[in-house]
Amino acid sequence: MLVGLAGNNGTTVATSILANRQKIQWEERTGTKTPNFLGSVTQATTIKVGETATGEDVHVPFSSVLPMVDPRDIVVSGWDINGANLYDAAKRAQVMEPDLLRQLRPELETMHPLPGVYFPSFIAANQADRADNVLEGSVQMQLDRVRADIRQFKADNELDKVVVVWTATTEKCVEIVEGVNDTAANLQASLEAGTTGVSPSTVYGVAAVLEDTPFMNGSPQNAIVPGLAELARERGVLLGGDDFKSGQTKFKSCMAEFLVSSGFRLGSIASYNHLGNNDGLNLSSQEQFRSKEISKSGVIDDIIAGNEILYPPGHKAAGPKSGSTKAVDHCVVIKYIPYVGDSKRALDEYSSEIFMGGRNTISVTNVCEDSLLAAPIIIDLCVLSELFSRVEVQVPGEGDVPAHWEPCCSVATPLSFFFKAPLNKQGGRDGVVNALFTQRRGLENLVRAMSGLPLTNDIPAIY
Amino acid sequence: MLVGLAGNNGTTVATSILANRQKIQWEERTGTKTPNFLGSVTQATTIKVGETATGEDVHVPFSSVLPMVDPRDIVVSGWDINGANLYDAAKRAQVMEPDLLRQLRPELETMHPLPGVYFPSFIAANQADRADNVLEGSVQMQLDRVRADIRQFKADNELDKVVVVWTATTEKCVEIVEGVNDTAANLQASLEAGTTGVSPSTVYGVAAVLEDTPFMNGSPQNAIVPGLAELARERGVLLGGDDFKSGQTKFKSCMAEFLVSSGFRLGSIASYNHLGNNDGLNLSSQEQFRSKEISKSGVIDDIIAGNEILYPPGHKAAGPKSGSTKAVDHCVVIKYIPYVGDSKRALDEYSSEIFMGGRNTISVTNVCEDSLLAAPIIIDLCVLSELFSRVEVQVPGEGDVPAHWEPCCSVATPLSFFFKAPLNKQGGRDGVVNALFTQRRGLENLVRAMSGLPLTNDIPAIY
Amino acid sequence: MLVGLAGNNGTTVATSILANRQKIQWEERTGTKTPNFLGSVTQATTIKVGETATGEDVHVPFSSVLPMVDPRDIVVSGWDINGANLYDAAKRAQVMEPDLLRQLRPELETMHPLPGVYFPSFIAANQADRADNVLEGSVQMQLDRVRADIRQFKADNELDKVVVVWTATTEKCVEIVEGVNDTAANLQASLEAGTTGVSPSTVYGVAAVLEDTPFMNGSPQNAIVPGLAELARERGVLLGGDDFKSGQTKFKSCMAEFLVSSGFRLGSIASYNHLGNNDGLNLSSQEQFRSKEISKSGVIDDIIAGNEILYPPGHKAAGPKSGSTKAVDHCVVIKYIPYVGDSKRALDEYSSEIFMGGRNTISVTNVCEDSLLAAPIIIDLCVLSELFSRVEVQVPGEGDVPAHWEPCCSVATPLSFFFKAPLNKQGGRDGVVNALFTQRRGLENLVRAMSGLPLTNDIPAIY
Amino acid sequence: MLVGLAGNNGTTVATSILANRQKIQWEERTGTKTPNFLGSVTQATTIKVGETATGEDVHVPFSSVLPMVDPRDIVVSGWDINGANLYDAAKRAQVMEPDLLRQLRPELETMHPLPGVYFPSFIAANQADRADNVLEGSVQMQLDRVRADIRQFKADNELDKVVVVWTATTEKCVEIVEGVNDTAANLQASLEAGTTGVSPSTVYGVAAVLEDTPFMNGSPQNAIVPGLAELARERGVLLGGDDFKSGQTKFKSCMAEFLVSSGFRLGSIASYNHLGNNDGLNLSSQEQFRSKEISKSGVIDDIIAGNEILYPPGHKAAGPKSGSTKAVDHCVVIKYIPYVGDSKRALDEYSSEIFMGGRNTISVTNVCEDSLLAAPIIIDLCVLSELFSRVEVQVPGEGDVPAHWEPCCSVATPLSFFFKAPLNKQGGRDGVVNALFTQRRGLENLVRAMSGLPLTNDIPAIY
Repeated sequence: MLVGLAGNNGTTVATSILANRQKIQWEERTGTKTPNFLGSVTQATTIKVGETATGEDVHVPFSSVLPMVDPRDIVVSGWDINGANLYDAAKRAQVMEPDLLRQLRPELETMHPLPGVYFPSFIAANQADRADNVLEGSVQMQLDRVRADIRQFKADNELDKVVVVWTATTEKCVEIVEGVNDTAANLQASLEAGTTGVSPSTVYGVAAVLEDTPFMNGSPQNAIVPGLAELARERGVLLGGDDFKSGQTKFKSCMAEFLVSSGFRLGSIASYNHLGNNDGLNLSSQEQFRSKEISKSGVIDDIIAGNEILYPPGHKAAGPKSGSTKAVDHCVVIKYIPYVGDSKRALDEYSSEIFMGGRNTISVTNVCEDSLLAAPIIIDLCVLSELFSRVEVQVPGEGDVPAHWEPCCSVATPLSFFFKAPLNKQGGRDGVVNALFTQRRGLENLVRAMSGLPLTNDIPAIY
Repeated sequence: MLVGLAGNNGTTVATSILANRQKIQWEERTGTKTPNFLGSVTQATTIKVGETATGEDVHVPFSSVLPMVDPRDIVVSGWDINGANLYDAAKRAQVMEPDLLRQLRPELETMHPLPGVYFPSFIAANQADRADNVLEGSVQMQLDRVRADIRQFKADNELDKVVVVWTATTEKCVEIVEGVNDTAANLQASLEAGTTGVSPSTVYGVAAVLEDTPFMNGSPQNAIVPGLAELARERGVLLGGDDFKSGQTKFKSCMAEFLVSSGFRLGSIASYNHLGNNDGLNLSSQEQFRSKEISKSGVIDDIIAGNEILYPPGHKAAGPKSGSTKAVDHCVVIKYIPYVGDSKRALDEYSSEIFMGGRNTISVTNVCEDSLLAAPIIIDLCVLSELFSRVEVQVPGEGDVPAHWEPCCSVATPLSFFFKAPLNKQGGRDGVVNALFTQRRGLENLVRAMSGLPLTNDIPAIY
Repeated sequence: MLVGLAGNNGTTVATSILANRQKIQWEERTGTKTPNFLGSVTQATTIKVGETATGEDVHVPFSSVLPMVDPRDIVVSGWDINGANLYDAAKRAQVMEPDLLRQLRPELETMHPLPGVYFPSFIAANQADRADNVLEGSVQMQLDRVRADIRQFKADNELDKVVVVWTATTEKCVEIVEGVNDTAANLQASLEAGTTGVSPSTVYGVAAVLEDTPFMNGSPQNAIVPGLAELARERGVLLGGDDFKSGQTKFKSCMAEFLVSSGFRLGSIASYNHLGNNDGLNLSSQEQFRSKEISKSGVIDDIIAGNEILYPPGHKAAGPKSGSTKAVDHCVVIKYIPYVGDSKRALDEYSSEIFMGGRNTISVTNVCEDSLLAAPIIIDLCVLSELFSRVEVQVPGEGDVPAHWEPCCSVATPLSFFFKAPLNKQGGRDGVVNALFTQRRGLENLVRAMSGLPLTNDIPAIY
Repeated sequence: MLVGLAGNNGTTVATSILANRQKIQWEERTGTKTPNFLGSVTQATTIKVGETATGEDVHVPFSSVLPMVDPRDIVVSGWDINGANLYDAAKRAQVMEPDLLRQLRPELETMHPLPGVYFPSFIAANQADRADNVLEGSVQMQLDRVRADIRQFKADNELDKVVVVWTATTEKCVEIVEGVNDTAANLQASLEAGTTGVSPSTVYGVAAVLEDTPFMNGSPQNAIVPGLAELARERGVLLGGDDFKSGQTKFKSCMAEFLVSSGFRLGSIASYNHLGNNDGLNLSSQEQFRSKEISKSGVIDDIIAGNEILYPPGHKAAGPKSGSTKAVDHCVVIKYIPYVGDSKRALDEYSSEIFMGGRNTISVTNVCEDSLLAAPIIIDLCVLSELFSRVEVQVPGEGDVPAHWEPCCSVATPLSFFFKAPLNKQGGRDGVVNALFTQRRGLENLVRAMSGLPLTNDIPAIY
């Protein structure tokens, strides 16, 4: 169940699953196309499981190592504050080809998003025009309605598991206020009282947790407030977030690891983006952009913190007396350029100090349909959160507490690969790993461990 | 001992070690600079060794995990077919700042490269002008002279270990011919007979091995012919190669791993380079460029081979009926543009198929002094080959052969991180790992294993 | 009449004229599209004709200044060595959207290219597979057949004027040989004798001239040999060439003018291209690429020659002792990358010396469908060559020759804006203007002069 | 006399004129350098004056067409709110090479900026630290002091002419308020009264005009308020502005002209900059950035207005119902990245609609020392404003007013080539030409006209 079903990501996930399930081909300028799951770690990558007798590596699909849901079996539904049917919504999104939408039209036209939670102050004022499909009543009533929607959807479709993914537009961040959202109890009291300090995304999160349903936050705001994290821990429900790591930030978390692990002293990153979809429009508002700016800024922190040769404490990028305030001068800019539509352009410049005062400058332009990067991540999160929901871990005994089994990772740290601002076990953003290949290796090794495969160490044969 | 001491890499290594040893500062336009070893894995990167009681990661310098040579203690010498003293050579290279060279001038002017092995047909005709410092006599006599040079240098400087690094310009590749260079015995016979099928780089390699000296091949030609590999194995001497992985290819081996491990079907890579130093001049000759083209082309093979979801056997980049001959359309171009000097520019475009027929295009421009990337790699190879020369591995018994200790890795597969076309244990180029982060992890884990640290698996805390 | 009608340019011109004439709309991913003539100077640009009483500039369409053909009235036909009907050919080209081709299918399927002149040695061997629609018989017979085709087409469609445009793939250049192609008479004798030194493009040129039909050479080879130029002069028929200036070279002729007219000493240009269409395949052959390399290389010559402050005679880009052989180090690379199809990518780097030893580096990536740039140029050349064919110039008397009227420009120097390697009045490539804005201004001022408008001088109001 | 003498531009102009006058060579990493005036239109470009008998073009230096000042004869002085001597200031700027500054040190150390006008609210708060050399007293007193400085400097150095150039950091724009700065009389009254609505740059402008000294405004703020423009007209003194067109905007005014004159419908421009010098620091403040954003935004307006085929009235970049508010979606971003220092990086993306719904995307990265672009423009403005100050124009009689001579262009419209936001004759920004090649042609033709050369029309020989 997607929050933001009628948006670009929502319609892309919905149409792509239908196309894959029904094996629908379509015509494009460049030829006949076949549906696929490219960009999905679970569906399009492999794991090395060993070697043949003659020393050839053997790889198998990631999805074959453990029993995982086939995404073709996923049933898609969700909420949206805009009531367009999914055909109209997909046309508006301008992500899918006309010939594919033409074939799916009968089915898509019958799909309507459920009315959504809409607290206008949390998103940009320019979103008001779209809000024609909203829940009414008190906060508590809206929460109850969302919970009922989840139950209804599960029952109607005879599902084993529901996953709720926030893929709606970016909200402003909320303040963590004692008595409001700091504990599970306070948060639930606030919801009942209708406090204004609770965001729609938190409402969906609470509803999901109360329905024993994993909740994934694909936007940058702090939906998973401490009270929600505590509630999930109490109930052993999986949470994941924040903000899908799909494009520029994903690349950056690769680049920073690349540069620093090569011994280069990365000194500045200038990151510019522009896009023309509704997400861009919403982010042209200052408070919403600020959420994004924060989620995008922390991505190099752990990589820098791990190398005190290059970055001794107090190091400033351009020297101690410069205007630099951090070890790496880093700016993030997002501009709304309607002309480019969903085709997001990320322009980055990485400057590093290298050997003997030299400079290395790497400029990157990355062009991609925003939604085509996000959709397979959403699918991975559904597959993996369903998987992890079935896993228990034996926790060693300590003191009076005997060894016992617990649900795995109530905050899903192994999913950090998929998030710009991954959460730690407590639901905070401190002490997390952003380095992309380290995240990837951790996820792979966890899956190996679960399946009984030996962990990888990559040491080559040395004799 | 560097082959190519008077070239850009040679002079950069020599001057930087002096500057670091003597802590010489210099003035540049952008301020006062201090010597360093940035870009060196051993000197400028760290290894995570554990966590504090409060869960903070603890990292220590790579070089502190095991006893390694301090590069400031390295004594530099070598051969060059050009006899310029190192001050004149460094001025010609235009890599180091005038104010640094001014301070080092007295010392550099006394340093002269030893006469080098020069078989004109192996390098571009345009190099003939530089060849004013060459060995005379039969091939065997030249080999003996190089061996004597190594012994003399070691004795004069009371060294524990010498490492020979080929950092001269690219030679054409040689054919592997039965009876000429296929076995240790045949190769030595060929040298004695003065066969034309043996390249200068192989002469240096043989000389090094016969003097129990590791030999690293930093250029793309196949210096390490099967006969040399066998000779090294017989004598337990370390070999490493081929071709320093410093810039574009290093980045590519990161990018390809990034894209494919994200489930993107990388479809084409267009790699363009231009540079204006003597390496560029030499590579403007077709046979020499061909060596380079080969060493740069294989870098994505293992990454593609490991994912049959994206690249089923027989897959062609642009479809079965297209002009594509491989799974990824890949071109490599190097042009000689004197105007840019040593400041090499690499322009790459990576195009990938993503979700549901979408395209992702990443364009990268990478600007860097070529020699400032290569020099710290040369230093790492000296440090690590000295280290590995001291390591023995217990080989399990098999059949009649009891368990026993052997010198580690006569072909240095763990050094593959540093080479564009890394060699396998047999000295060939099949079945090797090019993926950069996999190489890096393997090297780190090997060093961990040697020092008794637990291997990394990157699994995050999950409960 | 297009030579290469079944190629990417040919099908793009044919389908676009039909779509414009019939006002056919089509659906794309990004919405409903309407046909247009964007990219055409005559159809999509304006000319300033004066100012209003209040000082506002008044501009009118370029096409309104003089009576010009409306491109919607052009009838398209031509030859191709491949016999695919235009629907199949357009599908293969992958330039036009499926929904447009679907609507045009009935009409396009009835259009078949006439059999073409095919002398295999002039184009790449890889083109042989396409050659299934070729003329037979002696060279003279083929020439006669092409002439008959022109007459037939003109009669069948009751046309006022035919224009022949070579938009087929690149041929190798021919040698100018005394007695073969150096004079009109020799050339015609060679055609009759069937000499191998005459290229197909020259055959079409001769046929066109003999039928009083302008001939435009859109490819880089020297189709317009001196004998053909003489023949055209004798008969007062318009010639134009060589090689459509559509993308990278057009941009370069703007950039070079920009830099040098700003007082920057442009020092190097590295120009890299890759594309995956049939033109790219043909150019992957060395002789054909050589034609292209030549036509692309001369583009900055006049700009450099005009500034002896920056480029005194004998100036070498990287200094007198460097490897530079010219005033600007300039390389041109074209690679065949099937994966990118018709979507050509041009990557250029311009480095210049600026004030007090500084460097300015401009890197440009230009992505565009190759055929969508070329097609409007073809249309402009048809419109303008028809226009110029109607123009006569009064030539002043000299000596015994009285003042008299002559056809304008038998080699169409005012069309140099549209050609990478524009021809001078004699049909050679010396002494021509490549600077883009100078070409543009000259064309505009010529049209102004013809229509009686005052010429532009751009002096702003100064009091 | 430069306002901002101790800044990057000021020190670059001062040191470069000394180096050129004294022919001082210096050592850089890349060799020995010689001073020059590259980047100056008057000193480094040429004008075509005719052809030889054999048809070869003849070009002569721009500066030779009319008697112009030799920049080596310019004496540099000026004001700065920071009192560093020019050696310290030049070291801080990090623009010039150490070896050049070393040789000029004795002379530079004796040069001190005169105390400057400092009204803190006009520039960023972060500039306060630099303000240690400021004038005291009432606004009128400061104005008088600046006037006295001009007279003193002229007398001391026995100069024919002084030119005042504002090359200090960007101020916020002022409001044009009736009674304050709208007429010459009101402005002078405001200065006497000490009104806060008058900026330092206007103070310098008034002082210059009252001393019969041309004033050029190299920053984006509206220094030349209507009252100042009127004052200059009354006194026949030359004004020029606003904001040096040195880098990204200059390129943009070339690109927009290139694209639109090719018939492409430019749809969006995303312009990103970052730099690390003091100008970047000042622009990191919102009000100052706003001045810059305005001066950079209007540059394409006239180009768009001139083509109603592509841009009919009311046209929106992404269509009538899109989020576009203008005919071209255009954003300008400037970020302060200390790490890159004076080496400014401009990243631009131009997207255009081309033939039949196609898209052309041009991405440009432009790297340059900011001050090395601006300094030769400052020199050109000195040379040309001195020249134009000597020129009178015969104004035709009208009604009772007989024909008479007037000083040329009290607002220097022919200098618009050098300014991002050129001023019209009235000192406003409406109805001006931004197209770079049109500006260049206008300037050249004006100089031709003054010297009696025929104007250029670029029509090639057509018969």
